[in-house]
Amino acid sequence: MNPEAFREMDRSDPLARLRERFDLPAGTVYLNGHSLGALPLGVSERLERLVQTEWGKDLVAGWNVHDWIGLPKRVGDRIARLLGAAPGQVICADSISVNLFKLLSTALSMQADRRVILSQQDNFPTDLYMAEGLASLLGPDRCRLRSVPAERLLDALDDQIAVLMLTQVNFRDGRLHDIRTITEAAHARGVMVLWDLAHSAGVLPLELDEWQVDMAVGCGYKYLNGGPGAPAFLYLAQRHHDHARQPLSGWMGHAQPFAFDPVYEPAGGVQRYLAGTPGILGMTALDVALDLFEDLDIDQVRERSIALTQAFIDALAALRLEGVSVLTPTDPAQRGSQVSIAHEKSWAISQALIARGVMVDFRAPDVIRFGFSPLYNRFADVGAAIDVLSRVLSDKSYLDPAFARKKKVT
Amino acid sequence: MNPEAFREMDRSDPLARLRERFDLPAGTVYLNGHSLGALPLGVSERLERLVQTEWGKDLVAGWNVHDWIGLPKRVGDRIARLLGAAPGQVICADSISVNLFKLLSTALSMQADRRVILSQQDNFPTDLYMAEGLASLLGPDRCRLRSVPAERLLDALDDQIAVLMLTQVNFRDGRLHDIRTITEAAHARGVMVLWDLAHSAGVLPLELDEWQVDMAVGCGYKYLNGGPGAPAFLYLAQRHHDHARQPLSGWMGHAQPFAFDPVYEPAGGVQRYLAGTPGILGMTALDVALDLFEDLDIDQVRERSIALTQAFIDALAALRLEGVSVLTPTDPAQRGSQVSIAHEKSWAISQALIARGVMVDFRAPDVIRFGFSPLYNRFADVGAAIDVLSRVLSDKSYLDPAFARKKKVT
Repeated sequence: MNPEAFREMDRSDPLARLRERFDLPAGTVYLNGHSLGALPLGVSERLERLVQTEWGKDLVAGWNVHDWIGLPKRVGDRIARLLGAAPGQVICADSISVNLFKLLSTALSMQADRRVILSQQDNFPTDLYMAEGLASLLGPDRCRLRSVPAERLLDALDDQIAVLMLTQVNFRDGRLHDIRTITEAAHARGVMVLWDLAHSAGVLPLELDEWQVDMAVGCGYKYLNGGPGAPAFLYLAQRHHDHARQPLSGWMGHAQPFAFDPVYEPAGGVQRYLAGTPGILGMTALDVALDLFEDLDIDQVRERSIALTQAFIDALAALRLEGVSVLTPTDPAQRGSQVSIAHEKSWAISQALIARGVMVDFRAPDVIRFGFSPLYNRFADVGAAIDVLSRVLSDKSYLDPAFARKKKVT
Repeated sequence: MNPEAFREMDRSDPLARLRERFDLPAGTVYLNGHSLGALPLGVSERLERLVQTEWGKDLVAGWNVHDWIGLPKRVGDRIARLLGAAPGQVICADSISVNLFKLLSTALSMQADRRVILSQQDNFPTDLYMAEGLASLLGPDRCRLRSVPAERLLDALDDQIAVLMLTQVNFRDGRLHDIRTITEAAHARGVMVLWDLAHSAGVLPLELDEWQVDMAVGCGYKYLNGGPGAPAFLYLAQRHHDHARQPLSGWMGHAQPFAFDPVYEPAGGVQRYLAGTPGILGMTALDVALDLFEDLDIDQVRERSIALTQAFIDALAALRLEGVSVLTPTDPAQRGSQVSIAHEKSWAISQALIARGVMVDFRAPDVIRFGFSPLYNRFADVGAAIDVLSRVLSDKSYLDPAFARKKKVT
């Protein structure tokens, strides 16, 4: 497709104007929203007010007068809408890693005769690490992690499994799990489900309540655009609230934190999943970013996401680039909002793309990820990425030794 | 003492000018720095640069080019200096609550034949709650919390105790533990020590390395002035680094987070105590606040803290206010940087003080806390607080029904 055709697709897209609500650098084609979302307008002003006025002038009274204390629930309820969850089931808190630990502990405690956490071998590593950490702490008689390839997950559901922990969209290849089907299959075997929605929230239509999901976690800094290291979220279905216990029982999850009772009594509902004092700066930035989703139809977002990734996949196919294979499913129903390709020189190619203004990332061993964030990415970005990729591959500029050097973080 | 005498004390104090580096509201006597430190100048500008330039323009590359990834260690090392700890033993991460869980788990795993966490009955509740949470998770055969009154702590040190978890400065009455003496006594019984420095860091001279402390945690938002919900810190003595395991083994604590290895391998040293992605906004605000401590002699800070609290205690004694008792030790060597008083109408009195511009706080059942943060509080604040307190008590304005109503957070 020629550049004009891509520009025309942008002109006719009702969501294209959302890009104006982000502060994106000129001349950059940003395809890393699956790692760190772009900066929404208004964040800086809101933080200035938070710092200068709320903290600076109202000082500790800010916890009351600006209801900082209510922020984890308020932000949680805003995220709940994006997850297909009724209010009161989501809180914003801590990191995905820490929230996984809380929920895995809960699941094990609710499944007294089962001890296995089942997961996918190429789940995002922190998910596996946290399960490993819990298993080491509890010992093999009480907790074991079993991880299997994706295609063997359903067969592995047996009566030893307490909880199935999966990430909906695989971080490497962008392949999508069907939450409804897998949740049903797990429940049929008495297995609880814990979904990691890191690459889902804000970009995929979700119906956690309807799908009878037990638990979920997710990320504030990817498609929700909450900023670097934005706090995470945690969902626990209402039906589990009365029985749920979690071990990170800090004072913010107490029924009456400011009674300073020496004995822990959990707050009602999902509030008991709070541990320490919430980080108000980071959570406020995420709160501003969530304004973008007000009145937004997430089905339309998904439609645009599919159109963007499909345009990229189609253009790639038309080019038949030597040595490039597409790892992400070509069936849109089976992928998230990224397209991953493999090439034996992927690292150097990713660096050459970045040097030419196309920001992508690399994942070991040989994957380049092109993430399309439908709130700000355009069809013109698809066109530019394809154009630069095909030039880098044809002029072999990636062979420049400058692109071979590894960096600490990618 | 008359107001002029207090002003003269400010004029002759070498640290008095530090107050100019804070943005404090005019007309407020802020005595709540033990709860939320005041706003240091420069935080807002730094956050604007972080948001607009680092996040907004450099986007995900910020993890490398601005070394966000190194922030937990960098900020940790800056805090280490205030703790009397050599570099490489402190990281900035998560909340005190979550960090306590990590370290209590470590202590139990290193003391295989011991299962009791010993603490003080009126330790800050979240410390007790986190120990309770760990004990519930592990079960009574592997972990129990035993809490005793302060005066029985040393006698309670027996060979069942794995770790003694104490807060140096009591949140209610401001009484100070002698870390060196208690640590020695604990070690003599084979007990590890975990000190909560929430009310110590930035205001008390500390020598964790010299005192052979095993572990510590502390707070970014009190005397370090890092902002509402600023991230916490965690100290683990070098000699334990090789053996230490902790269960919140997230990807940031992995030896090679960006190798995306499916199996957890802990990073060297204290870095393994990182769990999820660090919150860069909150940690950057704390980093700016730490500038205040560069080139600052913490012994001088302590000297000023003692002088402020002593001036307050002496003035109170001179007034002989009816119904008021001072809970905080009059011996400066036994107190932190707050003065707590009790009165049967403490709640209403605290509200009347706040209404007249003296910001203090209340702690159940009957405690009013006057916190003196030596970096910005002046002797003039002591004078103003004494003046307003004596007027509120003599005109009984606290009996106004408006001051009886309880708020959610105080």
